[in-house]
Amino acid sequence: MIARQIDESYRGKRVTITGGLGFIGSTLATRLVGAGAQVTLVDCELPDSGANRFNIAPIKDQVEIIASDIASAALIEPALVRTEYLFNLAGTLSHTDSMRDPAKDLHSNCTAHLSLLDSCRKLNPAIRILYAGTRGQYGRPLRSPVDESHPLHSADANGINKTAGESYHLLYARYYGLHTCSVRLSNAYGPRHQMKHARQGVLNWFVRRVLDGDPILIYGEGTQVRDTHYVDDVVDALLMTLASDASRGEAFNLGAHPLSLASVAKLLVELNGSGAIEYRPYPPDALGVEIGDYVADCSKIKKLVGWSPRVQPKEGFLKTLEYYREHKSQYW
Amino acid sequence: MIARQIDESYRGKRVTITGGLGFIGSTLATRLVGAGAQVTLVDCELPDSGANRFNIAPIKDQVEIIASDIASAALIEPALVRTEYLFNLAGTLSHTDSMRDPAKDLHSNCTAHLSLLDSCRKLNPAIRILYAGTRGQYGRPLRSPVDESHPLHSADANGINKTAGESYHLLYARYYGLHTCSVRLSNAYGPRHQMKHARQGVLNWFVRRVLDGDPILIYGEGTQVRDTHYVDDVVDALLMTLASDASRGEAFNLGAHPLSLASVAKLLVELNGSGAIEYRPYPPDALGVEIGDYVADCSKIKKLVGWSPRVQPKEGFLKTLEYYREHKSQYW
Repeated sequence: MIARQIDESYRGKRVTITGGLGFIGSTLATRLVGAGAQVTLVDCELPDSGANRFNIAPIKDQVEIIASDIASAALIEPALVRTEYLFNLAGTLSHTDSMRDPAKDLHSNCTAHLSLLDSCRKLNPAIRILYAGTRGQYGRPLRSPVDESHPLHSADANGINKTAGESYHLLYARYYGLHTCSVRLSNAYGPRHQMKHARQGVLNWFVRRVLDGDPILIYGEGTQVRDTHYVDDVVDALLMTLASDASRGEAFNLGAHPLSLASVAKLLVELNGSGAIEYRPYPPDALGVEIGDYVADCSKIKKLVGWSPRVQPKEGFLKTLEYYREHKSQYW
Repeated sequence: MIARQIDESYRGKRVTITGGLGFIGSTLATRLVGAGAQVTLVDCELPDSGANRFNIAPIKDQVEIIASDIASAALIEPALVRTEYLFNLAGTLSHTDSMRDPAKDLHSNCTAHLSLLDSCRKLNPAIRILYAGTRGQYGRPLRSPVDESHPLHSADANGINKTAGESYHLLYARYYGLHTCSVRLSNAYGPRHQMKHARQGVLNWFVRRVLDGDPILIYGEGTQVRDTHYVDDVVDALLMTLASDASRGEAFNLGAHPLSLASVAKLLVELNGSGAIEYRPYPPDALGVEIGDYVADCSKIKKLVGWSPRVQPKEGFLKTLEYYREHKSQYW
């Protein structure tokens, strides 16, 4: 499906995005504003999160912003009542942070989402809701590629909490008939991602290292495979999935280009025209949550929703390098 | 394995049981006191829960009782520090209650357990911990019998929260090397179960109806199968599993006698010598969480732990009827 057709479904629609100032949320918002949707962003702008006002600078007068945790029902319910499509992207994704403070991660990724779902169920049961799941829910893969029936044996607290958060969404479809769905993202990269620390988003962190003239640090030999997708392909998938009647109560994998970390690093050095790679032993906290190779089986979303990726890694990383060269001061 | 051999592993050991005043906890405590263990019970005695001081009346001078929520770290840590075996049975099990107040259920079955686990990890990493899981984690079975690799697609909030609670336990084995394990219970029945309401423990509720001379109410035609186990068999399984080196990081199904609800009702009327059965349409809240037939595949616990059931349904229900005839005033 071409972008124009996807966008057509959202023209004039009332759309809310939680985590709307973050990497994927702000990219989605920019696309939706372009498509003629009425967009509301909810974000509590936690320190160290991906929230960045610069992400939405070009559309800031065309969106409403609610500065709130999604657990603060009183603050967000007025927006939920009028929302037709809710992209529920709020949450955290750091494997190591989640082990340092699992209770905080549980609140962000599970408790808060349950509160949000309850508000939707009570006030606006016709709403459509998409939850951003993660490949981290699977833990160390027992087979490859990983399809949606693979057991959810998370290797960290974040995966457990994201699984619980997703399970609530799917339960509310089965039990209350809400239109909810989940897209389990793999390793997304691209413009608008936070660049201040390495604890979420290893691909974008590689981009920063190369732009800073610092060596890209790789744990182990760099043979570990991640399924990578450029943010525009992710946004396509989210828009198409939530607009599709076939998505009700379903979880979908998303991935596009499985690549070893070493090959990503080499590609970045090549595209940048300079740079170095350094291989190091795993630090203990990273080793504990390392899940081995991950390749997503995406046949379900391709078949039921009609999505397919459009951006090749070379193009995606080139655009990412260009974006941060231009806007470095806003992200460093 | 005979009971005496099982008990031998616990002689002189320091054992803590959360939910220790409840149905299974108090039965386990009684057995452990008989085996010569030093037993501490943690229970916050929530209204409507299974907690009942009468359950432990015969052993009350031989156990320590800590009246606390398991989330109150300061109150329970002194006991955790000295505990060798922790049977972590605290929690709630009502499918319908969990849908009425999922946030409360999330606290009891997940958030509180995470706090407990963190205390154990920090203060006493040599502790062994058993978590009481539930067949409700599987939701509506996709195949029968259900083995441990069956997807966890809970049909209610309780199942989601119990899955998250269990996942934390198993994660702490993989990540921190703790000896944790989970036993996913089916439908347990027997003496010491609460008899005040029907929202948890349908089998014991049937016992109450028959003893009261009221008709046993069955939703639908009574053909729905539940895997039943008498509480003494459950206690055997818990003791054997936690004592076994093979249980570290593992989840085990438990079931013994798959029976239709109608056949349980008929057996109870027969054993009681009088009684009646009434078939009614499902009320909406019960229909939403009804999971169809459930039969547990218990080959894993039989093989790895050596457990097998010893009590036939006829004997188990007869003992249950006798217990409540004698102690009705303490439970009604």
